[in-house]
Amino acid sequence: MKTLQDYIDALNALDFKKMYEGDFFLTWEKTDDELKAVWILADALRYLREHNISTKIFESGLGISLFRDNSTRTRFSFASACNLLGLEVQDLDEKKSQIAHGETVRETANMISFMADVIGIRDDMYIGKGNTYMHDVVDAVSQGHDDGILEQKPTLVNLQCDIDHPTQCMADTAHIINSLGGIDNLKGKKVAMTWAYSPSYGKPLSVPQGVVGLMTRLGMDVVLAHPEGYEIMPDVEAVAKKNAAASGGSFRVTHDMADAFKDADVVYPKSWAPFAAMEKRTKLYGDGDQAGIDALEQELLAQNAQHKDWCCTEKLMKTTKDGKAMYLHCLPADINDVSCKDGEVEAAVFDNHRDSLYKEASYKPYVIAAMIMLAKCQHPQDTLKALEEQAVPRKIK
Amino acid sequence: MKTLQDYIDALNALDFKKMYEGDFFLTWEKTDDELKAVWILADALRYLREHNISTKIFESGLGISLFRDNSTRTRFSFASACNLLGLEVQDLDEKKSQIAHGETVRETANMISFMADVIGIRDDMYIGKGNTYMHDVVDAVSQGHDDGILEQKPTLVNLQCDIDHPTQCMADTAHIINSLGGIDNLKGKKVAMTWAYSPSYGKPLSVPQGVVGLMTRLGMDVVLAHPEGYEIMPDVEAVAKKNAAASGGSFRVTHDMADAFKDADVVYPKSWAPFAAMEKRTKLYGDGDQAGIDALEQELLAQNAQHKDWCCTEKLMKTTKDGKAMYLHCLPADINDVSCKDGEVEAAVFDNHRDSLYKEASYKPYVIAAMIMLAKCQHPQDTLKALEEQAVPRKIK
Amino acid sequence: MKTLQDYIDALNALDFKKMYEGDFFLTWEKTDDELKAVWILADALRYLREHNISTKIFESGLGISLFRDNSTRTRFSFASACNLLGLEVQDLDEKKSQIAHGETVRETANMISFMADVIGIRDDMYIGKGNTYMHDVVDAVSQGHDDGILEQKPTLVNLQCDIDHPTQCMADTAHIINSLGGIDNLKGKKVAMTWAYSPSYGKPLSVPQGVVGLMTRLGMDVVLAHPEGYEIMPDVEAVAKKNAAASGGSFRVTHDMADAFKDADVVYPKSWAPFAAMEKRTKLYGDGDQAGIDALEQELLAQNAQHKDWCCTEKLMKTTKDGKAMYLHCLPADINDVSCKDGEVEAAVFDNHRDSLYKEASYKPYVIAAMIMLAKCQHPQDTLKALEEQAVPRKIK
Repeated sequence: MKTLQDYIDALNALDFKKMYEGDFFLTWEKTDDELKAVWILADALRYLREHNISTKIFESGLGISLFRDNSTRTRFSFASACNLLGLEVQDLDEKKSQIAHGETVRETANMISFMADVIGIRDDMYIGKGNTYMHDVVDAVSQGHDDGILEQKPTLVNLQCDIDHPTQCMADTAHIINSLGGIDNLKGKKVAMTWAYSPSYGKPLSVPQGVVGLMTRLGMDVVLAHPEGYEIMPDVEAVAKKNAAASGGSFRVTHDMADAFKDADVVYPKSWAPFAAMEKRTKLYGDGDQAGIDALEQELLAQNAQHKDWCCTEKLMKTTKDGKAMYLHCLPADINDVSCKDGEVEAAVFDNHRDSLYKEASYKPYVIAAMIMLAKCQHPQDTLKALEEQAVPRKIK
Repeated sequence: MKTLQDYIDALNALDFKKMYEGDFFLTWEKTDDELKAVWILADALRYLREHNISTKIFESGLGISLFRDNSTRTRFSFASACNLLGLEVQDLDEKKSQIAHGETVRETANMISFMADVIGIRDDMYIGKGNTYMHDVVDAVSQGHDDGILEQKPTLVNLQCDIDHPTQCMADTAHIINSLGGIDNLKGKKVAMTWAYSPSYGKPLSVPQGVVGLMTRLGMDVVLAHPEGYEIMPDVEAVAKKNAAASGGSFRVTHDMADAFKDADVVYPKSWAPFAAMEKRTKLYGDGDQAGIDALEQELLAQNAQHKDWCCTEKLMKTTKDGKAMYLHCLPADINDVSCKDGEVEAAVFDNHRDSLYKEASYKPYVIAAMIMLAKCQHPQDTLKALEEQAVPRKIK
Repeated sequence: MKTLQDYIDALNALDFKKMYEGDFFLTWEKTDDELKAVWILADALRYLREHNISTKIFESGLGISLFRDNSTRTRFSFASACNLLGLEVQDLDEKKSQIAHGETVRETANMISFMADVIGIRDDMYIGKGNTYMHDVVDAVSQGHDDGILEQKPTLVNLQCDIDHPTQCMADTAHIINSLGGIDNLKGKKVAMTWAYSPSYGKPLSVPQGVVGLMTRLGMDVVLAHPEGYEIMPDVEAVAKKNAAASGGSFRVTHDMADAFKDADVVYPKSWAPFAAMEKRTKLYGDGDQAGIDALEQELLAQNAQHKDWCCTEKLMKTTKDGKAMYLHCLPADINDVSCKDGEVEAAVFDNHRDSLYKEASYKPYVIAAMIMLAKCQHPQDTLKALEEQAVPRKIK
């Protein structure tokens, strides 16, 4: 696309009106048009920024972040997205708050939201908890808005839950779309979402789940590869199958990494923990059973160690389509002899794809900003036009 | 009020010119007109925001917060107020600073204030300390301004000290005023500020003290109820008596919760620690006497446990005026069988009043913003008019 | 200077075009014209702010801070500078990030920089590390920008490294320049940069090194005084000698505090750790040798204690030029009987110079803002003019 009008025209062809005043939990709860709107709007916002046109749609307002797990890139992506739109980030640090007092989610959610336009939450550690918590927050602020307590309903952006990591997977896919020259070019391309060895354990399932749940929408041939015993959530596998059937793509599971890589156009080798183990861990935490948690950790590390051969090697990369598959990762990766002895990927592979990986990451702030804007602007095309006409420089030269 | 001009007209009838370049420590250091100006300006700012008109009066400038106690709602209220006016919040985290080096208050206060327009402090833990510290800060920055070190004198907003919690009590009262249809309708209404049981101990006295010190100004019949031994600061009781005499209201103390609730129009049941015990604790902390502190904690918890019957029950609520008293709380409340087994209030009472409680809390950001604006704008009526005429949208549609 | 045009004219006489898109590591890597441009632009920004003219050159963008050591005044100075220009500060808290995962500096630097216009780093604890780390960050983001990953290259501002503390020393010198009525008046003035006793140990060398590296540029007679054994980096001494030769000033080392103070126009008595000991400590930390670290601490404290007579006393101050030398300090100072029993300075001396010290500190936010603007605006004179013509008020009256 060459001009802002191109992006506006592309948006005009889509139906995404239900996103207004909505939230973003899981990609498979959105229509194809709605996902396309996110990608197009993300690119339009980047277009404006790169042309030094301010995209501030808010003069004031807070963007609230709640990270229940460490984060660098998602934290900065969320901060960047809010800043790009004019919202000030205010982090809810549960250690400095009074939340421990037995305060209900309903109360906290309303108390922090009087001037909040968006709430971004990362809560990915416990199966059955993170996504549920996000819904509790949305239910609370929606009721608060209906009851006249909150002037505006903040929109929720899922910054990673136990089920999906939509801002990551939407950014990953934006990168593929732009690399392949358009969304239609994804049809029939093979994606290998594969497990890989890591010396740490208990990595979230949300990325592999998010990838198979999303990329099957686009007519791609998605292969999920992992050693036996590293199954993802059955519900998400069912979603992937259904999506593939509808889109004309395919979805299958293999326990052979080489099978997945063979002729793949895109590979995404990444460690995760078995779903069943994560369910067990969640229960152990709930019971406060520290001995059980420690035993499980040892068990999982031993299980991982049996699969050190699941590594993205140069040799494997040569078996991909023309030896030139795109290599994706949500970062940080466990790189052999860089961040650990044995890991997910050989350093040479990582180095070859470094620029592409960093570009992949660069989509996340724009994807988040687009999600916010689609929930906050009833006619984002008009908003884009207004921003271009105002032409306030992002930076005075 | 229907238009912004109505708010401006109301402000025009008041004398609050001494608030310019001033600070907000205790409500009873302000005139009636000054308090009214806060409430009216708070409502005017809400009116503008609800009409999507930006209330940014600052293009740059910092709002500095210092929380010496955990906080969620006051932290977000202060952040919201600053953001509403265009100030960026910068938190002074004493753990990450060099303040422990024996640096004087005078020095720290000046060092952080070169571009600060407001400083908000919560320091409520130790009797005789918090309010004193705030005065030390104001003395320091005032002298810094007089000496030509600081271009502007930041205004101090007391976000809770050992004596008063003015942003809370002003918000509470704003809620009553708006619920009862105007400040004149508060005359002759009965307020029950009563102690209630909590399984925790050592809660600050600033809310009950702030409430009796403020609501006695408005011609209300204020009853302070608590078990024997839970006295508040004698100085504040004296203030309440004096205020009641001047306003045509009344103030009395009872040790009978039922007596306080009987025919009350407003009830505020909330736990606090005895003033004498807090004085003792402050001394023990000063002496570093951990054994003494531990012993005092046990003593106070045992004392509290003798008064589990001090709970805001449905039965008690029925004895209030027409069984329909407003139920206030600064939140979070200790709710029976929700946040604890036995607490300050029955869950059914809390649930009945939840929307009202959340609305009560919603006034705090606006009250804080009004306090800042009255200290920073010499003619806030003109500022309001200018904001309306500029009509910069808070959010581009 | 009386009008903004005076500052613009002064800038027009200088060549600083290489600062555009650059970084600020060490003052001695900059030309005289470049340093002058920082001082003039800092004053011009202050002029605009004091005339209530907004200096926001950014509508959006992040200013990233990374503090690997506690900080109050530098933290607030950086936040103030960013805010003054329109950037939102986002702190990279390494404890809340995933950096510990063995992630490379190259990766982290790019991941946080998608919308970053400036990165400010304090990393002063380990010899040979801080400055190197800053260069690694700049190399990473420069390559990221060249490779099309980052739309803009964030500029690095050294907020204190193991070698120099340029924002501090530039602020110190701005204060001298303005106090003495212009940069030309510094020629021939005597500066005593002297060690002073402190009961703590291991204070960074960056201030004394920065001072002798910078003030020798200005034709001043710089005397570095310290007890034997408290040598600074030999490389920096060499820089100071070379600078003095070029500027017509002088540089010498003495082990006699009285000698340094004698007829001095400016004194800067401040504790620091011996360079050799800091090198040793860095190695011990690298080896994880806690017993060695503890032993070194005891050794250094004992060494310090032999030099309690190195204190800035009233008696010594009387020996300076007309008994009226300027007394400088980066603050906080160790003040006798205030922050410690014996320290760097007598309370009476400190009190006499307090206003001057605070004014000295007030230059830092403006110096940092000037450094950012010189890296971000190709023609800052035009930018200043544009800001004056726009005349957006910093605060609506």
